[in-house]
Amino acid sequence: MVRWQPGARERLVLAAVDLFSEQGYDETTVAQITERAGVTKSTFFRHFPDKRELLVAGQETLSRLLAEGITGAPAGATPLDAVAAGLERASDEMGPLNRELGPRLRAAVAASAELQERDALKSVGMAAAMTDALVGRGVPDAPARLAAEMGVLAFKQGFERWSGVGRADDDRLADHATAALAELRAAAAQLG
Amino acid sequence: MVRWQPGARERLVLAAVDLFSEQGYDETTVAQITERAGVTKSTFFRHFPDKRELLVAGQETLSRLLAEGITGAPAGATPLDAVAAGLERASDEMGPLNRELGPRLRAAVAASAELQERDALKSVGMAAAMTDALVGRGVPDAPARLAAEMGVLAFKQGFERWSGVGRADDDRLADHATAALAELRAAAAQLG
Repeated sequence: MVRWQPGARERLVLAAVDLFSEQGYDETTVAQITERAGVTKSTFFRHFPDKRELLVAGQETLSRLLAEGITGAPAGATPLDAVAAGLERASDEMGPLNRELGPRLRAAVAASAELQERDALKSVGMAAAMTDALVGRGVPDAPARLAAEMGVLAFKQGFERWSGVGRADDDRLADHATAALAELRAAAAQLG
Repeated sequence: MVRWQPGARERLVLAAVDLFSEQGYDETTVAQITERAGVTKSTFFRHFPDKRELLVAGQETLSRLLAEGITGAPAGATPLDAVAAGLERASDEMGPLNRELGPRLRAAVAASAELQERDALKSVGMAAAMTDALVGRGVPDAPARLAAEMGVLAFKQGFERWSGVGRADDDRLADHATAALAELRAAAAQLG
């Protein structure tokens, strides 16, 4: 199997997340990130306008993909089937970088109040994007919100299993995420 | 009807939230807050260690009350009935200050990326507190997470209705929150 080789952009993201977790987000400078990644500052600024954008860019892409998958689901799909289509669409775009990043991002978030706030906002953004896409399909507000929250929980849980310790090499994020969604669907029936 | 008269602590919170919405969180100083509230700086520091704590204190109380209500629900309560007990418990502690704050906080959050992150973290904290309390009652992980997210949605929606424009004077936050939870419960059946 060919080992995945990160390019400059990927090395920058990995270096940044490691530094955030080692010394905090605020304390990390662009110079430290480029040094760790082994690239020049001008390479950094070709890829990102600033340190913050390193994290934000991926979040916006993720929300967009989830919404696209929901919008593109077959006309007769139930709200949760549409959410599953969103999870599939977003999962298919997640590659080796995302998988590498998973445990490192969790460590960085655990160590930084700033990154915890950013991570929370990411969940809210994902939920809002999915809610809007569901409402766009004609799903009423309350079930749209609920299905979107289930989608967020499922994606996060699926991602954690996919990128966690003891992971298999050939499993698919989409399978973990849709399995987590199926668990939540079953759980909805036990809520009383 | 006796009009509610805010004390120094309440005036500080109201002044701060208004200033955050007018000019941003970062740009607002403790001196500006105390001037607007008509109190001295030493009064501010008797109530709060810093500007950040103005917002954090209320959030922690809210999470604690939600969890207490869940933990104290009758042994046979379903997960959603326990969440409803949490909403009742937290709602009962919300007074005129919270109601006054509602629309002002929404304006401040809409105007500030920093406050959006903080607000998102508040939702995550509420969900985590309710999940833990449900798991403590023996609810399995997936239904606990789902019921907790439904509790967050219901509290936020109920709070918005209670503190929104055109609100009635004598309605109860608890009624709005539990009605929103009932809607989500019905919505869960339509998710497919």
